[in-house]
Amino acid sequence: MEPGVMEPLSGAWLVAHDAFVALGVLAFAVSGALLALQKRMDIVGMAGLAVVTATGGGMLRDLLIGATPVAALVDWWMLVVALGGALLVFLLHRWMDRLDRPVLVFDAIGLGIFAVEGAAKGLEHGMGPVGAAFVGMLTGIGGGILRDALANEIPAVFRRDSRLYLVPALLGAAGAAAAGSLGAGNWLVLGLIAAGVTALRIASELLR
Amino acid sequence: MEPGVMEPLSGAWLVAHDAFVALGVLAFAVSGALLALQKRMDIVGMAGLAVVTATGGGMLRDLLIGATPVAALVDWWMLVVALGGALLVFLLHRWMDRLDRPVLVFDAIGLGIFAVEGAAKGLEHGMGPVGAAFVGMLTGIGGGILRDALANEIPAVFRRDSRLYLVPALLGAAGAAAAGSLGAGNWLVLGLIAAGVTALRIASELLR
Amino acid sequence: MEPGVMEPLSGAWLVAHDAFVALGVLAFAVSGALLALQKRMDIVGMAGLAVVTATGGGMLRDLLIGATPVAALVDWWMLVVALGGALLVFLLHRWMDRLDRPVLVFDAIGLGIFAVEGAAKGLEHGMGPVGAAFVGMLTGIGGGILRDALANEIPAVFRRDSRLYLVPALLGAAGAAAAGSLGAGNWLVLGLIAAGVTALRIASELLR
Repeated sequence: MEPGVMEPLSGAWLVAHDAFVALGVLAFAVSGALLALQKRMDIVGMAGLAVVTATGGGMLRDLLIGATPVAALVDWWMLVVALGGALLVFLLHRWMDRLDRPVLVFDAIGLGIFAVEGAAKGLEHGMGPVGAAFVGMLTGIGGGILRDALANEIPAVFRRDSRLYLVPALLGAAGAAAAGSLGAGNWLVLGLIAAGVTALRIASELLR
Repeated sequence: MEPGVMEPLSGAWLVAHDAFVALGVLAFAVSGALLALQKRMDIVGMAGLAVVTATGGGMLRDLLIGATPVAALVDWWMLVVALGGALLVFLLHRWMDRLDRPVLVFDAIGLGIFAVEGAAKGLEHGMGPVGAAFVGMLTGIGGGILRDALANEIPAVFRRDSRLYLVPALLGAAGAAAAGSLGAGNWLVLGLIAAGVTALRIASELLR
Repeated sequence: MEPGVMEPLSGAWLVAHDAFVALGVLAFAVSGALLALQKRMDIVGMAGLAVVTATGGGMLRDLLIGATPVAALVDWWMLVVALGGALLVFLLHRWMDRLDRPVLVFDAIGLGIFAVEGAAKGLEHGMGPVGAAFVGMLTGIGGGILRDALANEIPAVFRRDSRLYLVPALLGAAGAAAAGSLGAGNWLVLGLIAAGVTALRIASELLR
């Protein structure tokens, strides 16, 4: 597997990539801030948990593949987006009466985006398809594991009542790694795979 | 922001830097050993928790900015200082009747030193001011988070009754990043900022 | 201490090294899957905990010494071996009536192998003997700490009733670092040291 199988990003594709990542950061930040709220943390705890959830998976990805300094420290707009997500939750939460459903949905969106994006970045850094699928899965589940561990919950991925968490992330990352290896790793295909992961994750919780 | 804004260390400044870091390592090691004592761990647990607390934040910093092998593995005098801190606690703890106040003070000293030093090292490795402030904050709070998590406590930074933990670290790291970016990042200024962080952290717990 | 004190691996030695690591991966994977079983996780949890336990220590080692991408992402046969260990436990567990003794034994095997192998890899990457001993110890205990933390247990290394956990790992890693530094770091010597660590760990639990 040669490095650089993913086409280099430029122009519209680069914008698409950044918008895609920003959506994932925002979704994970919202899920972190909501969980902080559920745990009765104050606004500093909400901001902290939002940032950790939103950037944790990507930091893990960059550490494992050796892409340091990690993206969240260089592209600091990610921090701004994550803090914006926490602020949004802080302003709007009065109008929500239950928090577990929104946590599920926003977590599922972040899961899909980061599983796919992690696999793509793994390929870009010269991983083979199996390694890229593994690192993509870890990118997807990493933020949520950190969030749950810091909020003193057993991470969803290891909870018995929540079995379809790792599987959608793994399928999505494997799909993205396969698409990238076959030269079809453009951001349209990757976006569709991410949406599939999100749908599968949500469906697995609602349809049982 | 060009790399190398911090002046290269030599002679007296290098000694000052190492003394500064050694004080932070010692303070965090003592706080780790004291918490181990409070949790009724044995001497191996005390030594282990002292080393993890003292080196954890710096390891996190080095991993995130890509400065590997991490400092604690190269400058092994840090391990010796950390073990010395644990030994000190082991020898002297009979004369202490309450442990939570000393844990607070030593933790606050380490918090200040590592927040500042982490930001400075971030700048040295070519981060911009925002990234350097973020990595400085993580360096400051990282050791304590690891310590609390391994001792099965909710990390102070996420406890509701302990709100001014992340904020002083962030202010100190931001101050150090700003000073360094403006060419004023000598170790006298940085030491004063660290002392301010420590004072703010202790005051926030005592004055309420 | 010059880099490359460990002789470069080739032919039979390379096979011996990979077999050695594979045995450690398998043993840690089995211990992880058994703990997942004890915690009533399903097969996905078993596979996940097996992979984390088997690859966690090595990932930590590679991150700290800067050997990225980490080995588990490049040599993906490790993932296959780890999943094989989980499958083995899944198929055979009906015939086991108690699980804590097998967890102990398989954990002790992994502990010995990774402590030794981590120290050797540290030397190969230019660490001095003290740094190599420290990174070897962390490699040995890292997988088990992650396993226990994710299964919501206090890590064995910090449990009061389990004092000889860190000490055998540290002795083994220091022995391997010393052997390697003295030019005697061949895989026969290292295998004997690993066996000593395993025996010491098991004996410390059984003989009390």
